[in-house]
Amino acid sequence: MHRCQPPDAVVWPQNVEQVSQLAALCYSQGVPIIPFGTGTGLEGGVCAVQGGVCINLTHMDKILELNLEDFSVVVEPGVTRKALNTRLRDSGLWFPVDPGADASLCGMVATGASGTNAVRYGTMRENVLNLEVVLPGGELLHTAGLGRHFRKSAAGYNLTGLFVGSEGTLGLITAATLRLHPAPEATVVATCAFPSVRAAVDSTVHILQAAVPVARIEFLDDVTMDACNKHSQLNCSVAPTLFLEFHGSEQVLAEQLQRAKEITQDNGAFHFSSAKEAEERGRLWAARHSAWYAVLALRPGCKGYSTDVCVPISRLPEILVQTKEDLKAQGLTGAILGHVGDGNFHCLLLVDPEDPEELHRVKAFSELLGRRALALHGTCTGEHGIGLGKRQLLQEEVGAVGMETMRRLKAMLDPRGLMNPGKVL
Amino acid sequence: MHRCQPPDAVVWPQNVEQVSQLAALCYSQGVPIIPFGTGTGLEGGVCAVQGGVCINLTHMDKILELNLEDFSVVVEPGVTRKALNTRLRDSGLWFPVDPGADASLCGMVATGASGTNAVRYGTMRENVLNLEVVLPGGELLHTAGLGRHFRKSAAGYNLTGLFVGSEGTLGLITAATLRLHPAPEATVVATCAFPSVRAAVDSTVHILQAAVPVARIEFLDDVTMDACNKHSQLNCSVAPTLFLEFHGSEQVLAEQLQRAKEITQDNGAFHFSSAKEAEERGRLWAARHSAWYAVLALRPGCKGYSTDVCVPISRLPEILVQTKEDLKAQGLTGAILGHVGDGNFHCLLLVDPEDPEELHRVKAFSELLGRRALALHGTCTGEHGIGLGKRQLLQEEVGAVGMETMRRLKAMLDPRGLMNPGKVL
Repeated sequence: MHRCQPPDAVVWPQNVEQVSQLAALCYSQGVPIIPFGTGTGLEGGVCAVQGGVCINLTHMDKILELNLEDFSVVVEPGVTRKALNTRLRDSGLWFPVDPGADASLCGMVATGASGTNAVRYGTMRENVLNLEVVLPGGELLHTAGLGRHFRKSAAGYNLTGLFVGSEGTLGLITAATLRLHPAPEATVVATCAFPSVRAAVDSTVHILQAAVPVARIEFLDDVTMDACNKHSQLNCSVAPTLFLEFHGSEQVLAEQLQRAKEITQDNGAFHFSSAKEAEERGRLWAARHSAWYAVLALRPGCKGYSTDVCVPISRLPEILVQTKEDLKAQGLTGAILGHVGDGNFHCLLLVDPEDPEELHRVKAFSELLGRRALALHGTCTGEHGIGLGKRQLLQEEVGAVGMETMRRLKAMLDPRGLMNPGKVL
Repeated sequence: MHRCQPPDAVVWPQNVEQVSQLAALCYSQGVPIIPFGTGTGLEGGVCAVQGGVCINLTHMDKILELNLEDFSVVVEPGVTRKALNTRLRDSGLWFPVDPGADASLCGMVATGASGTNAVRYGTMRENVLNLEVVLPGGELLHTAGLGRHFRKSAAGYNLTGLFVGSEGTLGLITAATLRLHPAPEATVVATCAFPSVRAAVDSTVHILQAAVPVARIEFLDDVTMDACNKHSQLNCSVAPTLFLEFHGSEQVLAEQLQRAKEITQDNGAFHFSSAKEAEERGRLWAARHSAWYAVLALRPGCKGYSTDVCVPISRLPEILVQTKEDLKAQGLTGAILGHVGDGNFHCLLLVDPEDPEELHRVKAFSELLGRRALALHGTCTGEHGIGLGKRQLLQEEVGAVGMETMRRLKAMLDPRGLMNPGKVL
């Protein structure tokens, strides 16, 4: 969706001192700085729209500190979420935020990532305790103070929160202190199919209201289910479907599963099945995580684009129905799936790269979807960020005073406008 | 602890337009502005150290919007947490953040309040979705955009987070959109006594590691227990004690209780008792919430001062032992209690108002405690805020670059330094 715009140079610093020296050098010379982690973002956050130096942080890949008793860890920017969870295996703890891609954790901080587990464990906003940031001029900031890793604080302004989701436009994140969670003792997955989108969403609201501590609650529409059936050899109904996951002790899981079953059946679910064994669970989630490829396979040769909006849960049925109508009216192939417990969903759109007119329709559809979310008191991005493509929507979302406040924040920390220019604002 | 410093005038605006006009008028005339909610803060946040106009927001006390399906509510600044929960009764939802006092919710936003339930439900940082803020010059900012109440977003800088915990120094909060939670189906409370502080803290860590979703886990030391026994006619052991609370279904609670019992007994707890009935639970929590008065009653005529630090949980035993030694060395009467699941605790100190020398020792002790927390990678305030008294400690906590960043933030939003001057920075 965003054409690759390469930087003038790429550098691979080995430590924070080198990052600081590079930033100071670039800044003093008026050269744009583009921080780079794994490049798995979806909104063009690493495009060098004004050229400049890409600071690739992947060589800094150490886990600096692991405090098991304190449920915290300090990672360098090259550590990915899978690498961290591999290291944590057998520790009884894990880091649950899971955007799908094996992104770098500091990149996930920069984009304010979330994903399937957010309904229970929160997004990056709730799971970052401290950040080491190289400010544009090279100065080193520890947002919660050097070496600190308390669970909460009321000391001064929340500088940590300012950098989570700043998309590399305010500074370079060179280390992150993250909150860890106890690994679930047991896990069970359930799927159920519904006669309508509303029935699936109503079930979600009722499950949340009943305080069933669901760990994941994912919505997949009929198109997605059809694609997953074909691609991942599933045998699910081609209907609006929920994938649910529960974490807890064996006994607790049985009760949670029973409650979810009752609630979904009260809402007309015509199929409910659960899987406790790791293999079967893995097969279901692999299908969910392969949905992107499954949908791509619907029209071979096409490229995919994933939209991302989030609305109050009560408004989900209407926006999902509208979106399906829009797809039809625009003659587009699109599959809808999302983190319905947060009101966040994506539409995976297929576009023929040889067809500029279709690309145009996809872009127009995506903008229309963003505006529909805004009209329903939602946000134009639940988790992918603003990047290059949603700057106009951000203005509509936060209004003139909000934009002016964001611009003043940017100017305060980056007066020359050299940190990842052209993004967010 | 902080001498009352009255403002030159107090005004009671009835709506946000009046707040905006008042702010613009004061600002243009160079008059300090002090926002006021319930005045229940503990760090002198409402003292008018430079005189000026106190804007008392208690007449704006409407619940503007209640979105049960979306788990959100919009409140004006005069709505207190008890008033909100009374309104929510029978809705199946509640607002769990509970700092003890019946504080105004917007005041709780301003101070970044938390309290006993934070271990499970988070602090104000995690429970604010949007804020309406009158900026010092009178402009109106909606931190997440006008009327929005989504559960998550990755759209631009986190302006909401910037105002949570800003202690009235960046603007006046005139409405807050808060996240609601499902009310627990059933509740059970347990108390257990330990042979040592370490045994109580180890139990806490083990309970958290075992993913027992404890809703409250409060530590009370021997002095506090003795005071509570006398004041609230309890019959508990005079020993380091945990008060635990669990929320869930009947079946889940039985399992959680059993696990907590096993863990605490493995750690040497010599007494474990639980209460399921509302009356008995109420009696225990009333005793906990009356601890302040119970401790005051140990030395009639004295005033109380509550310190507030937070450390990584693994460092709790050493700081608690050190603190007890410091109290002894300084000849002070102090009781220790706190939200041990967050690593946050208070020392309630008694001081004879007629004895300036004792007041001096109390202040010196409080500062020493703050520095001990900082030395253990902790924070000088877990929930009470910086206010007037902890500005020096904040500098030591966040360092020169952190302070400079906070000062620039303040100067950006309040260039004339008129918003609640003399606080935080």
